[in-house]
Amino acid sequence: MGLIGAELSRVDPGVIEIRLPYRADLAQQHGYLHAGIVTTIADSACGYAAYSLMPTNSEVLSVEFKVNLLRPAKGEKFLAVAEVVKAGKTLTVVRADVFGVHHKDHEEQRELVATMLGTMICLS
Amino acid sequence: MGLIGAELSRVDPGVIEIRLPYRADLAQQHGYLHAGIVTTIADSACGYAAYSLMPTNSEVLSVEFKVNLLRPAKGEKFLAVAEVVKAGKTLTVVRADVFGVHHKDHEEQRELVATMLGTMICLS
Amino acid sequence: MGLIGAELSRVDPGVIEIRLPYRADLAQQHGYLHAGIVTTIADSACGYAAYSLMPTNSEVLSVEFKVNLLRPAKGEKFLAVAEVVKAGKTLTVVRADVFGVHHKDHEEQRELVATMLGTMICLS
Amino acid sequence: MGLIGAELSRVDPGVIEIRLPYRADLAQQHGYLHAGIVTTIADSACGYAAYSLMPTNSEVLSVEFKVNLLRPAKGEKFLAVAEVVKAGKTLTVVRADVFGVHHKDHEEQRELVATMLGTMICLS
Repeated sequence: MGLIGAELSRVDPGVIEIRLPYRADLAQQHGYLHAGIVTTIADSACGYAAYSLMPTNSEVLSVEFKVNLLRPAKGEKFLAVAEVVKAGKTLTVVRADVFGVHHKDHEEQRELVATMLGTMICLS
Repeated sequence: MGLIGAELSRVDPGVIEIRLPYRADLAQQHGYLHAGIVTTIADSACGYAAYSLMPTNSEVLSVEFKVNLLRPAKGEKFLAVAEVVKAGKTLTVVRADVFGVHHKDHEEQRELVATMLGTMICLS
Repeated sequence: MGLIGAELSRVDPGVIEIRLPYRADLAQQHGYLHAGIVTTIADSACGYAAYSLMPTNSEVLSVEFKVNLLRPAKGEKFLAVAEVVKAGKTLTVVRADVFGVHHKDHEEQRELVATMLGTMICLS
Repeated sequence: MGLIGAELSRVDPGVIEIRLPYRADLAQQHGYLHAGIVTTIADSACGYAAYSLMPTNSEVLSVEFKVNLLRPAKGEKFLAVAEVVKAGKTLTVVRADVFGVHHKDHEEQRELVATMLGTMICLS
């Protein structure tokens, strides 16, 4: 997260938003955000969302996730929004959407570029 | 679909609902709906949802899907609700939730038992 | 498994094979085995493969799986072959391939029709 | 790939290997390789493996992938080995394993840390 310049922009119980400004060195050959970076912010958002519902002194790890890359990841910045689907004592299932954000006529426009469904585990 | 007794209960552009009454011969050893049946109605709902946005004379096939089984599939009946996330000329990404439905004090209660994220392909 | 006529044809520690003879009522509109049935035998094989490495008195449940449907599921019979990738105390990751089997000139030919990667959980 | 120091160490038709030396700034809080980096090298290997079987002047894009994170990603270096499962005109399905590599008594030891199953698309 530090290496790529991402930051938590919303922290609610079971809902997390991560914000990442575009940087040329995070892009692939066509100038779009690299799929690995899209996945990283989605996975991090899923992990924090699961963690936000876990007991104190827990640790969270990603068991697995699946991501669909829907469109070229274009944007001035990117938002990964994760929401817990089902919280369990051991396993928590989380969904995340990643949006590319543009500004047009002073209005913010979001375009869905990827969606993730993943499983997180709680370690005490 | 015919073998298991499932039927389309809602057909809108990009949104499909499939209804399956509980039947003992579709259950596993504990009396819950078998994971294969849960997956079958979710996949069918995803396929129809993608198909509902495709040109006439198209055919739809499942490329792949991932399903998280969240709770024991208990219910008097089951609903698979699918919604298109991104429709494309070739590929369409669809999300589906499967609910177990109970009646309590004359009210219908839904419990999420599985969630799917899948990719469908359009064949002309 | 009983409903569809599938049976265990190989049981080794961490490796399971399930055999399913073709039946017209398990097919979709083109005569191929329905994707839900392909998935069911793959998931069952994954579950048994994980279970074969668990302590006695355990129970196994599917947490999640992802399946790629690679070709039309044609065959006189079908084989689902599952192998444990990583066995853990709580979670076990399993991979399964499903083959359509044909006979030609007295030789058995296998064609890969689907592949699965899934996560199983051990309940004591 | 440039940003993280990864390089192609094997290129055969349908089989690709990517090598990544450990770097502290690619690690998470416990010193293990970050899941996003593990995923990035697996996805890149899958893309190149699919691409190696495509016609010249094609482009390859990741449609979707699922990754199971099996163990903490420890190692002096990491290897992502991808192999095409099914090559198609439009879609190619690829599997990849990521290994952490250690040296002990002058021998190289590999430990499987993640496995991926993904779908790549060919754009002409």
